[in-house]
Amino acid sequence: MNIQTGFVQISTRGHSDIVDITPQIHEILTKSGMQEGQLTVFATGATAAVTTIEYEPGLLRDIPETLDRIASEGAHYHHDATWGDGNGHSHVRAALIGASLTVPFISGRMLLGTWQQIVFVDCDNRSRQRKIPVQLIGK
Amino acid sequence: MNIQTGFVQISTRGHSDIVDITPQIHEILTKSGMQEGQLTVFATGATAAVTTIEYEPGLLRDIPETLDRIASEGAHYHHDATWGDGNGHSHVRAALIGASLTVPFISGRMLLGTWQQIVFVDCDNRSRQRKIPVQLIGK
Amino acid sequence: MNIQTGFVQISTRGHSDIVDITPQIHEILTKSGMQEGQLTVFATGATAAVTTIEYEPGLLRDIPETLDRIASEGAHYHHDATWGDGNGHSHVRAALIGASLTVPFISGRMLLGTWQQIVFVDCDNRSRQRKIPVQLIGK
Repeated sequence: MNIQTGFVQISTRGHSDIVDITPQIHEILTKSGMQEGQLTVFATGATAAVTTIEYEPGLLRDIPETLDRIASEGAHYHHDATWGDGNGHSHVRAALIGASLTVPFISGRMLLGTWQQIVFVDCDNRSRQRKIPVQLIGK
Repeated sequence: MNIQTGFVQISTRGHSDIVDITPQIHEILTKSGMQEGQLTVFATGATAAVTTIEYEPGLLRDIPETLDRIASEGAHYHHDATWGDGNGHSHVRAALIGASLTVPFISGRMLLGTWQQIVFVDCDNRSRQRKIPVQLIGK
Repeated sequence: MNIQTGFVQISTRGHSDIVDITPQIHEILTKSGMQEGQLTVFATGATAAVTTIEYEPGLLRDIPETLDRIASEGAHYHHDATWGDGNGHSHVRAALIGASLTVPFISGRMLLGTWQQIVFVDCDNRSRQRKIPVQLIGK
């Protein structure tokens, strides 16, 4: 049993930008040489989240549109009164989607579906540089 | 410390069908002989999710009804324009609930509440056969 | 590699009360002496959830208000017909947010953002005593 911690570094456009980070995670897994275990992807920062989707252009519009119905950018947020940074909706969206995702792997391959990618959702209201921890536990 | 990966196989009816998979997971845990650790349940495929609920008939209706308010089956989805398979709402719902759940166990028992079950939520718009990874790490 | 299971004990006010449990988790991590690994926080019980937020007064109002739009306390729930305990909305909210969160740590510190706290969200419709498992796997 062993642990390894890697990082994926990306630029996002914010505004619920959805970035496919599966290739970078696959590379971290392959380089680790681990065959069986799990990897945890974590969104460091309270305005971003991690989930899985089929990464295709339609859903890249559908998911932000749904998030805008749940926690509209135009609504009033008490958070904005605290800081004045106008990203109350970003915080609420990120808290609902969730910050961590744990994916099992066997035979050196993640147990993702054929059309299932690991995505980072940057809900902040501006472009950001993000450093995303990916931690492997296995053998 | 050891790792074991098992699978739960189920048939679902789709349409946000909620299936209690706690008994099968309990059996995998018991057979492993592990006493302390955690197990990760993962929804392989981008139209399904994993969470916990009190598994009783009322919530089996309340949760799909809530999902239909958040991401209605009748709404327009750009995803459907891409593939024409009419399950845009399925993808959005699954991405929001989330694909992974990690449950700690001690003394060979999961730390679930008395009225808390692990459920697989199949948001797809048709019945499906699902093979759900359950990975144990512990001792 | 080692495993340790601790518990955080809190009182909540219910009604989507959001409690910052980061200090107690930090203490469990520090006492463990582990340097690299992950910790899983789990909401035992089907009316509570775990996520991360920036813990400031504005969001402590914004998140319950958003949850009340998604699963209003005043709406009809079939769950309430089953048990008559009036907390159908609590169950639905908890299932959507999710019961588990996994946070990696390195050099003995969790990889949280500067303004990111681990919170327990008690969606039940009354005050509760909660015992929250925190399980560390690492070295």
